[in-house]
Amino acid sequence: MYTLGNNIRMHLFGKSHDAHVGCILDNIPRGMRISADEIRNEMSLRKPKDGIGTPRTEDDHVEILSGLKDGAADGSPIRMIIANKNVDSSKYKEIVNIPRPGHADLPAMVKWKDHDIKGGGQFSGRLTAPIVAAGSIAKQMLSPMNIKVAAFTRSVGSVSDEMERDMEDALASRDHATRACSPELDDRIRGEIISASKDGDSVGGVVECIVTGLPTGFGGIWFDSLDAVISKAVFGIPAVKGIEFGGGFALAKMRGSESNDQYFIDNDSVKAMSNNMGGIVGGMSNGMPLVFRVAFKPTPSISKEQRSVDLSSMKETVISVKGRHDPCIVPRAVSVVEAVTALVLADVSVSEAI
Amino acid sequence: MYTLGNNIRMHLFGKSHDAHVGCILDNIPRGMRISADEIRNEMSLRKPKDGIGTPRTEDDHVEILSGLKDGAADGSPIRMIIANKNVDSSKYKEIVNIPRPGHADLPAMVKWKDHDIKGGGQFSGRLTAPIVAAGSIAKQMLSPMNIKVAAFTRSVGSVSDEMERDMEDALASRDHATRACSPELDDRIRGEIISASKDGDSVGGVVECIVTGLPTGFGGIWFDSLDAVISKAVFGIPAVKGIEFGGGFALAKMRGSESNDQYFIDNDSVKAMSNNMGGIVGGMSNGMPLVFRVAFKPTPSISKEQRSVDLSSMKETVISVKGRHDPCIVPRAVSVVEAVTALVLADVSVSEAI
Amino acid sequence: MYTLGNNIRMHLFGKSHDAHVGCILDNIPRGMRISADEIRNEMSLRKPKDGIGTPRTEDDHVEILSGLKDGAADGSPIRMIIANKNVDSSKYKEIVNIPRPGHADLPAMVKWKDHDIKGGGQFSGRLTAPIVAAGSIAKQMLSPMNIKVAAFTRSVGSVSDEMERDMEDALASRDHATRACSPELDDRIRGEIISASKDGDSVGGVVECIVTGLPTGFGGIWFDSLDAVISKAVFGIPAVKGIEFGGGFALAKMRGSESNDQYFIDNDSVKAMSNNMGGIVGGMSNGMPLVFRVAFKPTPSISKEQRSVDLSSMKETVISVKGRHDPCIVPRAVSVVEAVTALVLADVSVSEAI
Amino acid sequence: MYTLGNNIRMHLFGKSHDAHVGCILDNIPRGMRISADEIRNEMSLRKPKDGIGTPRTEDDHVEILSGLKDGAADGSPIRMIIANKNVDSSKYKEIVNIPRPGHADLPAMVKWKDHDIKGGGQFSGRLTAPIVAAGSIAKQMLSPMNIKVAAFTRSVGSVSDEMERDMEDALASRDHATRACSPELDDRIRGEIISASKDGDSVGGVVECIVTGLPTGFGGIWFDSLDAVISKAVFGIPAVKGIEFGGGFALAKMRGSESNDQYFIDNDSVKAMSNNMGGIVGGMSNGMPLVFRVAFKPTPSISKEQRSVDLSSMKETVISVKGRHDPCIVPRAVSVVEAVTALVLADVSVSEAI
Repeated sequence: MYTLGNNIRMHLFGKSHDAHVGCILDNIPRGMRISADEIRNEMSLRKPKDGIGTPRTEDDHVEILSGLKDGAADGSPIRMIIANKNVDSSKYKEIVNIPRPGHADLPAMVKWKDHDIKGGGQFSGRLTAPIVAAGSIAKQMLSPMNIKVAAFTRSVGSVSDEMERDMEDALASRDHATRACSPELDDRIRGEIISASKDGDSVGGVVECIVTGLPTGFGGIWFDSLDAVISKAVFGIPAVKGIEFGGGFALAKMRGSESNDQYFIDNDSVKAMSNNMGGIVGGMSNGMPLVFRVAFKPTPSISKEQRSVDLSSMKETVISVKGRHDPCIVPRAVSVVEAVTALVLADVSVSEAI
Repeated sequence: MYTLGNNIRMHLFGKSHDAHVGCILDNIPRGMRISADEIRNEMSLRKPKDGIGTPRTEDDHVEILSGLKDGAADGSPIRMIIANKNVDSSKYKEIVNIPRPGHADLPAMVKWKDHDIKGGGQFSGRLTAPIVAAGSIAKQMLSPMNIKVAAFTRSVGSVSDEMERDMEDALASRDHATRACSPELDDRIRGEIISASKDGDSVGGVVECIVTGLPTGFGGIWFDSLDAVISKAVFGIPAVKGIEFGGGFALAKMRGSESNDQYFIDNDSVKAMSNNMGGIVGGMSNGMPLVFRVAFKPTPSISKEQRSVDLSSMKETVISVKGRHDPCIVPRAVSVVEAVTALVLADVSVSEAI
Repeated sequence: MYTLGNNIRMHLFGKSHDAHVGCILDNIPRGMRISADEIRNEMSLRKPKDGIGTPRTEDDHVEILSGLKDGAADGSPIRMIIANKNVDSSKYKEIVNIPRPGHADLPAMVKWKDHDIKGGGQFSGRLTAPIVAAGSIAKQMLSPMNIKVAAFTRSVGSVSDEMERDMEDALASRDHATRACSPELDDRIRGEIISASKDGDSVGGVVECIVTGLPTGFGGIWFDSLDAVISKAVFGIPAVKGIEFGGGFALAKMRGSESNDQYFIDNDSVKAMSNNMGGIVGGMSNGMPLVFRVAFKPTPSISKEQRSVDLSSMKETVISVKGRHDPCIVPRAVSVVEAVTALVLADVSVSEAI
Repeated sequence: MYTLGNNIRMHLFGKSHDAHVGCILDNIPRGMRISADEIRNEMSLRKPKDGIGTPRTEDDHVEILSGLKDGAADGSPIRMIIANKNVDSSKYKEIVNIPRPGHADLPAMVKWKDHDIKGGGQFSGRLTAPIVAAGSIAKQMLSPMNIKVAAFTRSVGSVSDEMERDMEDALASRDHATRACSPELDDRIRGEIISASKDGDSVGGVVECIVTGLPTGFGGIWFDSLDAVISKAVFGIPAVKGIEFGGGFALAKMRGSESNDQYFIDNDSVKAMSNNMGGIVGGMSNGMPLVFRVAFKPTPSISKEQRSVDLSSMKETVISVKGRHDPCIVPRAVSVVEAVTALVLADVSVSEAI
């Protein structure tokens, strides 16, 4: 159910208000060194920051319980847990029968009579913490192949970054709480989020992810296409509503003479003059940077009053979601997009090596 | 490699210029009646039409070689083949070392020294023919559950259908060669395609797919989310560059109070007042129609001259792709989007029944 | 890697000398009540007893960390851990380069330069503890379907139980430390084990497993045959060297008129007059009890001196394995055979329900 | 359902009385040369011979419909079919409601109202023809790794080969219709089969399989153990009732000092002084020849009268199976055991290469 991957495989476990969340990561190459520092860095990027995230604070310390020996993978499954320390279920009591609009509540309540609404149960964004930890290990596996994965905030609400961005820009976003590429955009996006928050509202946005270093031909075909397996992993992240590679939806308005990336020779190797394909043709890398964008809807939990229904009485009512929620999930989702992408690429790299 | 699904599984085989293409469809419920007429209807919708598609004509007769007994599934794998009759490889000889921009050629040629460029080899859209045949059987499996799948052409190039569309409209598109929802749009889209064709060019577009009848709660969570498994199948279709559910990328600009679909009571059942979520929250159906849009890039093969490189001499050159190609793949892709969606839903329906 | 099953799936983790061993059990039906008492009972049957097992004592308390709510499965993965408290690695230092005959050491040392010989590493029988815990949950899932699984010790060394045994006998074996079906056999088998132990030696044996309550037709065909999936799970248990169903190898000496189980009518239902097929024909249950036997080799670790090779110096040497080992694994393996069988049947029961 | 393997995967299709049986073989390395002669040789070894097999004659010509280019794998699925030419369903009419003892009929008839008894339907040994064809390709893949797979007839009924046998002996069995290792045994086994046949009866036997050339460490652990995956594939063959590796069931009577294969140095490499383990310890190859034996029950279809039940009237009756059946399946099963073993080893060799 909660498994991602074929060769490099991650099994998630835990719920938002359990003692821990965590994952098992299978088939990391025996002997690969694993840096706890790098895991810690990635975890810190996912943390809420500076008044633009949830007030729930977790130290997010990743404890590796098995699978390592003297700092290297020992060939057995790597099992990691992260404690849930700052749990507060008090806010959920009054809405136990009232599905929050935009949330998983309605299908979950209808499907499972015993659905536990507290903290989102199995659907909670809290489970993205072990995803980021596993993603860090995947990045460390990709690093010697010179494959780099970095994402950033392309837009939040009405504020959009209009510049073309590269790997360096994406890495620079790590210095900004909003994961914007520049201090100026960081300010504007922070403003957009705080404004929504003050209104008891939330706001959506777009994450863009860039991958460099993929060899030409990297990826599978048909249902194993690189874009197919990435999109499956990305839609596994809560709140994702769209994905596009390269020119994406804009390509649908173009003619082929405009969208096709024509080839030329640069330093004895074949390069494309543009990157409308986002680095993928026929499901495989064409050697250009892999570029895709992911649309996140606004956080569904808002304190603004909304119409809903009490499922026990089947009467209409209104709901105002208290709890502690991020007014905008995008800045923290950047890490999660990077993580699932790294996991998918590590998995495909094993297939490619066969 | 070419396999879609877990319980209901399709294995594709064949290449564009082989004697046949086809597939094996596993685990169709024993005893289920299979209508050859319905398969024929679906196949005819995928055929090029009226001067807006490739001049390659295939009768696309689907021969079911095993798995049926007296018109019903006998519980063994259903094996179907479709002959490739109208094969013409003459146009490929001169471009054997020159990757066509936007095409799978470059990664395929770099990865595999012996790559057979003729008709796209394993990447050819010709393999979507057995997908449509298998999809028709999946639709027949969904029909008694009252689950309906229909798609239509939302836009081609600069012509866009701006109306909200429902299942009835989508079904009506079957009367139009372009799969537009109205005769007027059919005309305009035909014009757009013919104009591109006359210029030796091609044009992209957007397919929208609607599913009704999914019970609330239909679908999985995390990487088995309904949107995750649909997107993986959709990106398995050649030329797809983006997918969005419900409001999709537009949601990224909204606030939660605007994007959340609020609930009310309609005829003793819970309904949403809007469908920004496209029928999916938390990876499961919320009982509203499932709605998603798929961006198709323009057909990469165009006769207009483009820059490319001769990989044998590593010299820059120009290429003008002769062959027989659809100037716009969108009208025919509508059937393919329906087919993979039906296959995914049939597969998930088995998991749901457990 | 350490995963068993398709729908009901168990992922093992941990090593013999880690802080814990454990497993994740996926897809146990939401709402199913899980009795901790029954898990405890099963765990106690696997414990070494009465001077015939290893002196390593573990309380084998199973801690369920997630997946339960108010005593019932909550639909999320069930994560269980069991502490390794009584770890003693001192005995392994002197044999770190000398593969123990009959043990996994040689291939493991050759394949992995860093192989950790302590307690058998990933190969340790210690990992059968979480298998038994998971198996108990599988049994609880099978119980309402009236499917019962019970095994017993058929033979140890030269002592063999020559009686035909049924479910009642197999259940009675739970009262005997050796898992023999009668007090008299329990005595004789205990004698056989103690005699081997006194000689610094070990001894092998045969476990027989009986399953009642399978509906006629239960199971798959070809590589999903019931015997195929059971045998795969059984060979996953360390020290297994053979399996046979019903008459097994004895059938190879028979004629068809002798081996075929002829049918008659008993109380309005079809029964077989004999059970040479062990309850399986064509990969599916024929309604008779499922019966199979599993051959276990003697524990490879013995204190008797044996010839081996020091891989660091590539010189011949002798080895006498100290550590703490069961002189006969069979009495404890009975629980493990039951557990993997129950896990496989629970998994197949889900496929059958589709 | 009818799929074997993970990386190298075979999907079977067809039924005994369909126009064809066949399979798709996935992921054979692109560029690997495939010899049609070797396939033909393997197919001829599976044919009934010299009055000791079924009178049904099939030329068993393997037609490769796709996946090859100029005699080498082209990276796409390899699709093979074999025609069923000599079909005679006349004998099945009178027994349509009477399950043949020992056969899959009873569970199949109870499970599926529409079960087609003709030629065994999906259970037919006829489907082992494409298994042998696929196995030949797997052998050709193993050949450059110097891995050889050969099996022979160890016993039929009361005639047993008591000699220790090696690869050379096993290969020599190819010269004898019964697949015995010597002309003398060939005569005696032929006598045993003909004697059973004259009595309107059938007889069982044991196939032994030897594999040389596996590198030390080849194989997985726990449920991916080499013995686990081989046993699953072997029990996929119709009529198999037991499997044992090395000493197998005889080990259960031994002490460890007797069963352990002690190590010595031979020509600078580590060898075992005996092969009780059959070449596998801890699920992996220890560098010794892999040796296992497979018990086949007597063919269930015999013309001797047996008791059965008419399921339509639920009255007891007698049955005498006419049809055309092998009085002993063992000589032909030798090829099938080799084939599934080669397929499993080819599959594992890909995992090992990762």
